[in-house]
Amino acid sequence: MKSEEIFGLVLRTIRKKQKMSQEKLAFQSNLDRTYISMLERGVHQPTLNSLLSLAEALNMKASELVKLVEEEIAKLK
Amino acid sequence: MKSEEIFGLVLRTIRKKQKMSQEKLAFQSNLDRTYISMLERGVHQPTLNSLLSLAEALNMKASELVKLVEEEIAKLK
Repeated sequence: MKSEEIFGLVLRTIRKKQKMSQEKLAFQSNLDRTYISMLERGVHQPTLNSLLSLAEALNMKASELVKLVEEEIAKLK
Repeated sequence: MKSEEIFGLVLRTIRKKQKMSQEKLAFQSNLDRTYISMLERGVHQPTLNSLLSLAEALNMKASELVKLVEEEIAKLK
């Protein structure tokens, strides 16, 4: 599984845990909803800026978000 | 200062601490040297994949690399 696909699953899981819609996450992160949908489907890769915006919108640190992705990648190795 | 500029400074600092040339980092991260130069100058933003490749080449975790950037951003707030 590609890292952007893993990122997408991690992002969706965190968003759903916070009972947040893609629309709300888009609004709070100042990103486009379709972009978030593409990120969650692993079609797009996040940039540093989108990682920082998404993390802020999800009330967490971008480094924590990346750490969760690293943990999932490690599980698949 | 934009986050990609801060990232560039952090990346250059870590690379120099490890006495690694841009060429060597490019080779070890399987990225183009000019791309690394643009990252270090804050002209480009890293993607998740380049963060993961760069971190691996620098023998650190991508989450640690992002954390260092967050710490620098916090200092500037």
